Amino acid sequence: MISTKLTELLGIDHPVVCAPMGGVTGGRLAGAVTAAGGLGLVGVSYGDPAFIDEHLPQAAANGGVWGVGCVMFTFDERPGLWDKVLGYAPPVVALSFGSTAQVEKYAAGAAEAGSRVVVQVHDPDQAAVALRAGAHVIVAQGAEAGGHHASRTTLPLIPAVLDVTRGEVPVVAAGGFADGRGLAAALALGADGVMMGTRFAATEESTASPGFKARLVSASTDDTVNTRSFDVVRGIPWDERYSARSVANDFTRTWTGRDPELAARRGEIEPAWTAAVARDDTAQRALFAGENVDRIHDVRPAGQVVRDVVADAERILAGLSRHLRA
Amino acid sequence: MISTKLTELLGIDHPVVCAPMGGVTGGRLAGAVTAAGGLGLVGVSYGDPAFIDEHLPQAAANGGVWGVGCVMFTFDERPGLWDKVLGYAPPVVALSFGSTAQVEKYAAGAAEAGSRVVVQVHDPDQAAVALRAGAHVIVAQGAEAGGHHASRTTLPLIPAVLDVTRGEVPVVAAGGFADGRGLAAALALGADGVMMGTRFAATEESTASPGFKARLVSASTDDTVNTRSFDVVRGIPWDERYSARSVANDFTRTWTGRDPELAARRGEIEPAWTAAVARDDTAQRALFAGENVDRIHDVRPAGQVVRDVVADAERILAGLSRHLRA
Ligand SMILES: Cc1cc2nc3c(=O)[nH]c(=O)nc-3n(C[C@H](O)[C@H](O)[C@H](O)COP(=O)(O)O)c2cc1C
Ligand SMILES: Cc1cc2nc3c(=O)[nH]c(=O)nc-3n(C[C@H](O)[C@H](O)[C@H](O)COP(=O)(O)O)c2cc1C
Repeated sequence: MISTKLTELLGIDHPVVCAPMGGVTGGRLAGAVTAAGGLGLVGVSYGDPAFIDEHLPQAAANGGVWGVGCVMFTFDERPGLWDKVLGYAPPVVALSFGSTAQVEKYAAGAAEAGSRVVVQVHDPDQAAVALRAGAHVIVAQGAEAGGHHASRTTLPLIPAVLDVTRGEVPVVAAGGFADGRGLAAALALGADGVMMGTRFAATEESTASPGFKARLVSASTDDTVNTRSFDVVRGIPWDERYSARSVANDFTRTWTGRDPELAARRGEIEPAWTAAVARDDTAQRALFAGENVDRIHDVRPAGQVVRDVVADAERILAGLSRHLRA
Repeated sequence: MISTKLTELLGIDHPVVCAPMGGVTGGRLAGAVTAAGGLGLVGVSYGDPAFIDEHLPQAAANGGVWGVGCVMFTFDERPGLWDKVLGYAPPVVALSFGSTAQVEKYAAGAAEAGSRVVVQVHDPDQAAVALRAGAHVIVAQGAEAGGHHASRTTLPLIPAVLDVTRGEVPVVAAGGFADGRGLAAALALGADGVMMGTRFAATEESTASPGFKARLVSASTDDTVNTRSFDVVRGIPWDERYSARSVANDFTRTWTGRDPELAARRGEIEPAWTAAVARDDTAQRALFAGENVDRIHDVRPAGQVVRDVVADAERILAGLSRHLRA
């Protein structure tokens, strides 16, 4: 067991969080991470009522501390969805990607419903907003992350955020973590845990498609690209400051950097693209993955990922004082 | 004192390296870091004979383990310069930015001259090249660095490089380090030390201009930009894979992304730009700085930087086992 302010606040065994990945972190994956002593967050993301009804009970099935992750800016137009999420009484609600007003609104709502509120931030100013909005935990996510991210990278970001939070709330580091060395480094920086996405996407319980999982195992870091193409083709109005890291494929090679044209031709392109995704065509579908994708060599049970990360970090933490000389 | 494979190999007290920054790390700064128990590397960079004759003796004046850093691709056309550098018998020669053939050539030359050879790399393939070329130490530099860098960021890069070096040589982490938390995190990742640039640029002994130092203290991370403009206006043929992080100013706002036009109009623009640099015009000159520039709040003696980083890292390393529970 590795104890930090995060594990103490939430009552979990290990400071290891499975990221709420849309289409990837279903109830089984979140539940497996929770069962292994970490925190599993179901990727409710943009929100689909049928997904919520299927996956939230799965995550909750074995008890323990589980949660949901919601992409705030997509919830405003659909208030019923938010109430549906809270109706499952998730012990933890993780909020990502929203304006100051949205952070305030959803943080207050989740706290009122009795959930612990996690807010993901990408710079020190957003950390200050999250603190003022009453976040119980802050996730600081750097640009090496898989999926959507802003521009600052994790290593300089974590100390900058810690200088804002000053110990008031636990800070979880995200973006670029895949093993026990990373967890040990995050704690050395002063963070209280790590959130991993890419590593957990390549697990048996992940709902990533077979083709996607195969690319997570085979792709190199140099294959990744930051793109808005998948947002544009889906018509999701992401703020300009965020792009998404994906393994490059024919679709990103064709469209990255041509957002206005893709938006204009969406009616023509989107149906074929959606059909390709349905066939798990990896040349077309989004393959969100972080910079550490080249260190993913297998698809493992999620509980094994938690155990390996924790065991390695324990060994490292126990040994670091060997560097000290009088 | 913090002992690692790096300190043992080189016979230094602390695994803290001052980056060889062109125009910034002169003999006084390098000597001050060496005197404080770290490793100071004079930024010979693109090489200027008068600079070498002035600064290498300064760095060597107090004895101790000092070195020089050379940008390999600029040395090929000027063989006399390389011999001049080796003539000062630097205990350490750090090589950065070169082809496989250049790494092999300069690593062999420096080793033959009796120097310890440090090679800076930006991905695992370059690490394998450096190992084969006989590097005694590898610096793995991530994209959050000030000055020139490639695309991978430090946090995922270090474990990827360590998986190549497998303990054969010490690995120094660079890019995004500014304090003791960073040094502790680097050791937790498995690296054997850190190299810092931006933090040491903002020291009393640094030869950064007064205007540059003032911007290092005042600028925020969000002010930094990756640009090739300063290379293009100087006519330095940098490989496309490297760009340089600088605090943005009028010059970068005007020219970033317009390399071919700037190259074509160089004859017209370069003289006025060079004159502006000579006046320390911060709206025009290069202001190379890394992502952690917003954590630089003062200009300190370099020895104080070393002592603060080491003292904080010692405290952190001594305390990390507190996270372990049976
Ligand atoms: C496949 C995938 C899907 C993701 N989907 C979401 C999402 O729906 N909502 C969200 O807040 N973050 C999402 N992320 C980002 C993660 O929350 C997390 O910040 C990131 O994965 C951490 O970086 P890492 O991939 O290097 O571990 C996604 C990441 C991946 C890899
Ligand atoms: C002002 C400045 C000048 C630099 N000049 C050089 C150089 O001439 N040669 C080189 O190999 N690296 C140079 N670098 C990069 C450093 O060697 C080092 O890799 C980098 O500063 C580490 O990242 P940090 O700035 O976040 O500490 C420079 C960096 C800065 C900030």
